Amino acid sequence: MKLNCDMGEAFGAWKMGQDDHIMPFVDQANIACGFHASDPHTMAKTVALAKQHNVTIGAHPAYPDLVGFGRRNMDIAPAELKALIQYQIGALNGICAGQNTQVTYVKPHGALYNTMMADFTVLDTVMQAVSELDNRLILMVMAVPEAPQIKLMAEKYALTLWFEAFADRLYTDEGRLTPRKEPDAVHASFEKIEQQVVQLCETGTLTTASGQALPIHADTICVHGDGDHALDAVTRIRTLVNAIHSGNTK
Amino acid sequence: MKLNCDMGEAFGAWKMGQDDHIMPFVDQANIACGFHASDPHTMAKTVALAKQHNVTIGAHPAYPDLVGFGRRNMDIAPAELKALIQYQIGALNGICAGQNTQVTYVKPHGALYNTMMADFTVLDTVMQAVSELDNRLILMVMAVPEAPQIKLMAEKYALTLWFEAFADRLYTDEGRLTPRKEPDAVHASFEKIEQQVVQLCETGTLTTASGQALPIHADTICVHGDGDHALDAVTRIRTLVNAIHSGNTK
Amino acid sequence: MKLNCDMGEAFGAWKMGQDDHIMPFVDQANIACGFHASDPHTMAKTVALAKQHNVTIGAHPAYPDLVGFGRRNMDIAPAELKALIQYQIGALNGICAGQNTQVTYVKPHGALYNTMMADFTVLDTVMQAVSELDNRLILMVMAVPEAPQIKLMAEKYALTLWFEAFADRLYTDEGRLTPRKEPDAVHASFEKIEQQVVQLCETGTLTTASGQALPIHADTICVHGDGDHALDAVTRIRTLVNAIHSGNTK
Amino acid sequence: MKLNCDMGEAFGAWKMGQDDHIMPFVDQANIACGFHASDPHTMAKTVALAKQHNVTIGAHPAYPDLVGFGRRNMDIAPAELKALIQYQIGALNGICAGQNTQVTYVKPHGALYNTMMADFTVLDTVMQAVSELDNRLILMVMAVPEAPQIKLMAEKYALTLWFEAFADRLYTDEGRLTPRKEPDAVHASFEKIEQQVVQLCETGTLTTASGQALPIHADTICVHGDGDHALDAVTRIRTLVNAIHSGNTK
Repeated sequence: MKLNCDMGEAFGAWKMGQDDHIMPFVDQANIACGFHASDPHTMAKTVALAKQHNVTIGAHPAYPDLVGFGRRNMDIAPAELKALIQYQIGALNGICAGQNTQVTYVKPHGALYNTMMADFTVLDTVMQAVSELDNRLILMVMAVPEAPQIKLMAEKYALTLWFEAFADRLYTDEGRLTPRKEPDAVHASFEKIEQQVVQLCETGTLTTASGQALPIHADTICVHGDGDHALDAVTRIRTLVNAIHSGNTK
Repeated sequence: MKLNCDMGEAFGAWKMGQDDHIMPFVDQANIACGFHASDPHTMAKTVALAKQHNVTIGAHPAYPDLVGFGRRNMDIAPAELKALIQYQIGALNGICAGQNTQVTYVKPHGALYNTMMADFTVLDTVMQAVSELDNRLILMVMAVPEAPQIKLMAEKYALTLWFEAFADRLYTDEGRLTPRKEPDAVHASFEKIEQQVVQLCETGTLTTASGQALPIHADTICVHGDGDHALDAVTRIRTLVNAIHSGNTK
Repeated sequence: MKLNCDMGEAFGAWKMGQDDHIMPFVDQANIACGFHASDPHTMAKTVALAKQHNVTIGAHPAYPDLVGFGRRNMDIAPAELKALIQYQIGALNGICAGQNTQVTYVKPHGALYNTMMADFTVLDTVMQAVSELDNRLILMVMAVPEAPQIKLMAEKYALTLWFEAFADRLYTDEGRLTPRKEPDAVHASFEKIEQQVVQLCETGTLTTASGQALPIHADTICVHGDGDHALDAVTRIRTLVNAIHSGNTK
Repeated sequence: MKLNCDMGEAFGAWKMGQDDHIMPFVDQANIACGFHASDPHTMAKTVALAKQHNVTIGAHPAYPDLVGFGRRNMDIAPAELKALIQYQIGALNGICAGQNTQVTYVKPHGALYNTMMADFTVLDTVMQAVSELDNRLILMVMAVPEAPQIKLMAEKYALTLWFEAFADRLYTDEGRLTPRKEPDAVHASFEKIEQQVVQLCETGTLTTASGQALPIHADTICVHGDGDHALDAVTRIRTLVNAIHSGNTK
C-alpha cells in the first residue's frame, strides 16, 4: 500500500500546503501542472523536492480554472480535454526532464476527477489522452466497485491503473465518498482513520455508512497535505502502513 | 537553406495566420505553446498539420503575456525563466507525443527572443533550460556577427544551434534588424527580398543599410504567415530556395 | 424596435468582428468586459467608437473563460457569480467614465445567458447583481413566453428589462431557439430574416418550427457582427426597421 | 496622519495576509483589483469588511501579472496603461456600488508604483487615467522630496494627492527606500519604527541612511498586513498615532 498526496499547489506568491514537511512521508506526489494551481517555477521546486525524497512523480492535470482551483465543473469537448491533459502532463515532464527525472503516473484533479469517475465517457477520453501520450504512464483512479469495468476500459489502451482509496472519508454503499456537506463525511477521530487503513490493507474492504463491508482493492491511499493536523495525520498513517507491511500490527 | 515560420498562433475562438495554406511551403514550424498564443487544442491541430506536411516541429516559448502576445518585455528571474521555457517545450512535446512525433528544436518568441539576442546572460539561461531538458534539442537563434561567441556558449551545453536570417528586413551594420519604425526597415518590393535570399544563399552575406556586405551564416530563413501577401511571399521564397538548391538560378 | 450587437470581441493581438463597419448601423453595443473576450484597451477603443456613433453602451459580462469564449458552462456559486457580474459591469463603467459616458444596460453573454434563461435561480442572481450595483441599469434578456414571470422577478428588484429577439433563428414552439445543430436552426435566406423582422415589429409574433404564431414582445433585435455576410445583413435589417418605424413598409 | 494597508490579496483558494485582524486598525484599505491579486468574490468580501470597520476604500491597480504578483516590470504602452488602470478602478467601484459604497482613492501597486515614482511620464499617464475617470478620486503617491513637482503635475488634472511614507524602511538621502537587499533596509526593532513615526508626525522629517534629517510631508503611513509580526506592529503604530493625535506622547 502506497501513500499519495497532492503537491505543488502554491501559485506565484501564494503558498498552500506544507510540501517540505509532508514529502518525506509519502510515496507518490500528485504535482499540479499550472491549470488549477502551480506555475513553472513552483513545479520545478516541487519536482526537486520529490526527487530528493525518492518520491514517485505524478501529473495532476485539471480543468483550466485557477480562480476556482479546478473544483468547478466545466463543459469541455473531448478533443479539447484530450489536448489539455496531454499539455499538462507534457509540461510537467519538461520540468522533470530538466532534472533528469520523469512523470510516472497521472491523477486527474478535482472536478475532472469527479467527472471522470461519474461519467465513463470522460474517463475514456482521459485514458485515451494518457495512453496516446505514452502508455507506460500509469493512470490513478478511484477504487470503486466498478473496478472490473474500468480495467476492461484500460486494457483497450494497454494502460496500467493504480486504484486509490481515502483513509479519512466515509464511503456510501455504492463505494462513493459521502458528500462533504453531510455530517459524518470526514472521519473526525484518528482512530477511525487508522481502522479504515488497517481494514483496507488487511481485508481489502471498507465499512460503509450503513455498516456494510464493501470489497475495495486499493494500491494507494490518498493523504492530505494541508489543514492543521495534516502533518500529524500523514506521519501516523505512514507509521501504520509501515508497520502493516512489516507485519508488526496487532 | 530551410524556411521557418511561426505557426499555431490562434487562441481559442480567435484566428491568426493562414497555417493551412502556409504549412506546405515551409520546413520548420515554430509552434506557440500557450503563453503568448495558442491553447492545447490549437497546438494539437497545428502539430497534426505539421506532421501531415513533414514539417519539423519547433517549440516557440514566450513570456507569460497573452494580451501582449509576448511582445512586451518582462523582468523575469533566471530560475523562473528556465522553468517557464522547460514547461512550454514539455507541453508541446506532450501534445506531439500524443501524435507519435516530437519537438526537434526551440525558437524563443518575441520579447524573449529580442532580449536573449541583446543580453547574452539571458541567452545563457535559455541554453541551460533547453540543454538540461534534452541536449538533442536544437536552439534557433538569430544569425548575427557574434555567432562565434554564441557557438562557444552553446558548446558549454553541448547544444546544437540553427542560425536564422530574415529575408524581408534591412540589417544595420551591426547585423541587427533596422527597427520597424524606420522607413526602410521592411523590404517593400519582392525583388529586394529575392535578392537578399539569393545573396544569403550564394555568398553568405547581407547588404546592410549603409551598403556594406556583412558576412552572415544562416541555416534557415524566417518567413511570415500573416499579412495580406504572406502566402504569395512564402511560395515565391520557397520556389527561389528550391531553385538555388538545385542549381537553377541565373 | 432597436438593434443590438456584440462588440469589442477582439483580444490583444487577435481581431474578431467588424466593429468599425457595423457600429454605425446598430443602436446598442453589447461590449465584452475581459472575461470571455476583450481587454481594457480594446474596451476603450470600442467605447470610443460607440460614443462616436451615439450607440447605447451595454456591458456583456460572461463566465471567466477566455479560451472557451464564455461558451462553456461553469458551475459558479451565486455569491461568486454576483461578484463577477458586478466586477465586469464596473470595469466597463470605469472605461466609460474615462470618456464621459456610461454603461446603460447589461446583457449576459454566451453560456451565462443560456443558463440564466434556462434556470431562473441563476436569472435571479443576475438581477440581484445588476440592481444592487445600480437599479437604473437595464437588464436585457431573451423575449420568451415566460416574460410575465420574468417581469415579476424584475419588479422585486425595481429593475427595468429589455427583451430581445433573434431575426435569423428558427424558434421552437416553446419560444426557444432551435439548437444550431439542427438543419433549419439559422435562416439561410435573407427573405426569411426580413419576414421574421416584419412579423415581430408589426404583429408581435414569430412563426415557430411547427408553423404556429407565437406571441413575443421584443424591444430589440440581436444582429451579428461577424461572419461573411454580417455587414450586408445588418444594413438590410437596419433599412427594414427604419422603414417600419416610418411606416414605409408595404 | 492616517494608516493605509494593502488588503484583499487572496486569490481564489489561496490566502494572503490577515485582513480580518488588521482591518480594524487602519484608515485606508488598498484593495487589489484582480490583476496582481484578488478576484471578484474576494474583492466583495474585502469591501464588506472595510465597510464594516468604516475604512476608506482605495483601488490598488497593477500590471496584469498574477503569477508575478505585479512585482515584475512590464513594458506597457501609455494607452494600454491608462485603460487597464481605469478598468481596475471601475471593477472595484462596481463591487463597491453593489454594497452602497465607493472607491475614494487610488494607489498603484508594486512594479507600477515603483515605475511611476521613477519615471514621471508614467506618473503622468496614471494621473490622466485617474482624473479622466473621476477627478474626485484621490491619488496616493510616495512622499518624496520631488513632491512640489508632483503637485504641479497633479494640478494640471485638478487631482488631489495623498502622500504616503513608510514607517519601517530606511530612506536614502534622495528620499527613496533603501533597496531590500541591503542590510539595514527594513527596521528590525520596533523602537526604530516608533521613532520614525513620531519624527514624521511631529517634525515632518525622516532620518536618512547617512543620518541627515530629510523633510517629508506625509498624509498617511503604509503598514503591512502580512508577516509574522504584522498584527503586533500595526496595533502598536495605531496606538502611537492615536496618542500623537491626542497630544499624549512624551
